[in-house]
Amino acid sequence: MTRTGSGIGIDDLPIRDELRGQTPYGAPQLDVPVRLNTNENPYPLPEALVRRIGERVTEAARALNRYPDRDAVELRTELAAYLSRTAGYEVSREQVWAANGSNEVIQQLLQTFGGPGRSAIGFEPSYSMHALISRGTGTEWISGPRRADFTIDVDAAVAEIAARRPDVVFICSPNNPTGTAVEAATVLALYEAAQAARPSLVVVDEAYVEFSHRPSLLSLIEGRPNLVVSRTMSKAFGAAGLRLGYLAADPAVVDAVQLVRLPYHLSAVTQATALAALEHTDTLLGYVEQLKAERDRLVTELRALGCEVTDSDANFVQFGRFADSHAAWQAILDRGVLVRDNGVPGWLRVTAGTPEENDAFLDAVRAMQKETV
Amino acid sequence: MTRTGSGIGIDDLPIRDELRGQTPYGAPQLDVPVRLNTNENPYPLPEALVRRIGERVTEAARALNRYPDRDAVELRTELAAYLSRTAGYEVSREQVWAANGSNEVIQQLLQTFGGPGRSAIGFEPSYSMHALISRGTGTEWISGPRRADFTIDVDAAVAEIAARRPDVVFICSPNNPTGTAVEAATVLALYEAAQAARPSLVVVDEAYVEFSHRPSLLSLIEGRPNLVVSRTMSKAFGAAGLRLGYLAADPAVVDAVQLVRLPYHLSAVTQATALAALEHTDTLLGYVEQLKAERDRLVTELRALGCEVTDSDANFVQFGRFADSHAAWQAILDRGVLVRDNGVPGWLRVTAGTPEENDAFLDAVRAMQKETV
Repeated sequence: MTRTGSGIGIDDLPIRDELRGQTPYGAPQLDVPVRLNTNENPYPLPEALVRRIGERVTEAARALNRYPDRDAVELRTELAAYLSRTAGYEVSREQVWAANGSNEVIQQLLQTFGGPGRSAIGFEPSYSMHALISRGTGTEWISGPRRADFTIDVDAAVAEIAARRPDVVFICSPNNPTGTAVEAATVLALYEAAQAARPSLVVVDEAYVEFSHRPSLLSLIEGRPNLVVSRTMSKAFGAAGLRLGYLAADPAVVDAVQLVRLPYHLSAVTQATALAALEHTDTLLGYVEQLKAERDRLVTELRALGCEVTDSDANFVQFGRFADSHAAWQAILDRGVLVRDNGVPGWLRVTAGTPEENDAFLDAVRAMQKETV
Repeated sequence: MTRTGSGIGIDDLPIRDELRGQTPYGAPQLDVPVRLNTNENPYPLPEALVRRIGERVTEAARALNRYPDRDAVELRTELAAYLSRTAGYEVSREQVWAANGSNEVIQQLLQTFGGPGRSAIGFEPSYSMHALISRGTGTEWISGPRRADFTIDVDAAVAEIAARRPDVVFICSPNNPTGTAVEAATVLALYEAAQAARPSLVVVDEAYVEFSHRPSLLSLIEGRPNLVVSRTMSKAFGAAGLRLGYLAADPAVVDAVQLVRLPYHLSAVTQATALAALEHTDTLLGYVEQLKAERDRLVTELRALGCEVTDSDANFVQFGRFADSHAAWQAILDRGVLVRDNGVPGWLRVTAGTPEENDAFLDAVRAMQKETV
């Protein structure tokens, strides 16, 4: 006897009204030869690191009957060391917090600084989870403006912040899905506007910053207790499967999110795996250099093919423009390459893969162009 | 130059008003010889399982650059098989959902069925995270009544549900921190009352059910789409460090929580580790039998010492009664044994440890009694 197919649907359940008729977030997971749709790092972890993960997790498993370190002290120490070394600004363990993916970091920040009766703003198109997690935490979402070239119009953004007085401001740099990093002056202008409107939390999402032509904005946290920089090991560390996000901010912010974090939220195996990956930082950052070169090649070659391409500081490239971007997405998919349609009219996003994957993608674009010309 | 000690405190930040003055949840983590305070399983995982975890995580690490299976299909299939085999009721993968600890399962349920403008009830004293996660998700918390013997007074509970019309009803069985399992008839009466008041979600938290004298209430989900049973691998599977909680319910409930779950919330290493542990279910359930015998011995010996002891179906025992339970907690701690003061006046909670740990605990109680007589 099977219990599936009870005939009950989601909308027959007493779920919240605003969830009715919605579908879960997530890119289509299709089985195609070349998948360049979720900004994953195409390089598997080196075998030495794979073995080291096995060792450290085995060690952690010997104490798995005990709860993990609730404060993840060793991991936060090593993340702080990584930031201090690579971002040119010394941060301490007390300024770093980690969670299951930067999504959980953002959720904890919104539970602490957003929530019912409060609002958050982002400048769209941007990382869609900022809006989704805001709604998931009962935070009103304000869709702020961006210029046609996808940069932030500082005057318009400042005016919007002054008018709407959001409690949380998201700035994604490099921006996903458009690709370009934000200048420090822009962040500072928005921070000042947000503090003037009301004391607001400003979150700079640097998920892709290791791929940027510009330095991290980490040092802006100095003297700005309401500024948070969020990071992830999913991209530069090639560890999307690990789900390890983190933030750097004033120690008071780290103390504050502990009021809402689920106790023991970060498992012992996650902590052990992340620590192993941090031991291999130099090797992994070597892959980042290769990906930056491939990303630049994608920009150059797409432009040579007559595509419009947004400047990219990330491991992905936004290209267009298409009269029907979904049809273009399908045409590329029909040639065995999955890219992302983020719903930005006229544009698609392609992740920088291995040289071979990128060649396959460029071939698919060429083939599509021939057919439609 | 250190960036810590900025002089900024939590309350200087623009956090939510209801968080001001709060402290993070969590048992004191003290370095003492015998720790019987967090209901951990005292038995480390067997070495064969530790090695298997190393193997499976190593395998998973080879694809760690890719996002994990967002739907955790293999893990949910194996969890369903475990439930079907041990709870005497066949459940399918479509009826099972997993997250980072049962706390995250509960958080996802509250985001879907509770939240701002809604309320949840639990019968206290009970697992304090039900109330904390309710508040963390903006859900109004209603503290329902319990009898002096810590059983649920069905008439009083039904009346409270009828009067308050909560959106979510928590029933913890076996109840933490008191220890006793709830009868099926009680759950059914509360479910009917909750459906009559308004269609409400009823969550039966069975974190400790493998230690119970009574069977799981899993089969009650049959024909009751608003009934959810939550479980964890922290206790019976000896894997508190893994953070793997799960639920069984109508497939529609599983679909519904996917509207609020963070995408890719469950890491590839967590999924691999949990799958390894499920391969060793029989060995781990053998430890459960040993712990049940030790739990029963604790009940018997504490009663022989003149303590009042609440009947226990869990891997812990509530004992008392003390004029000053905090002083008793300290007196036991002074003898090297850490138990838990859950704030239930007159009572303390001790986790069933190894025979040696339990002997040390009983010796500490005897020594305390001698001193105070």
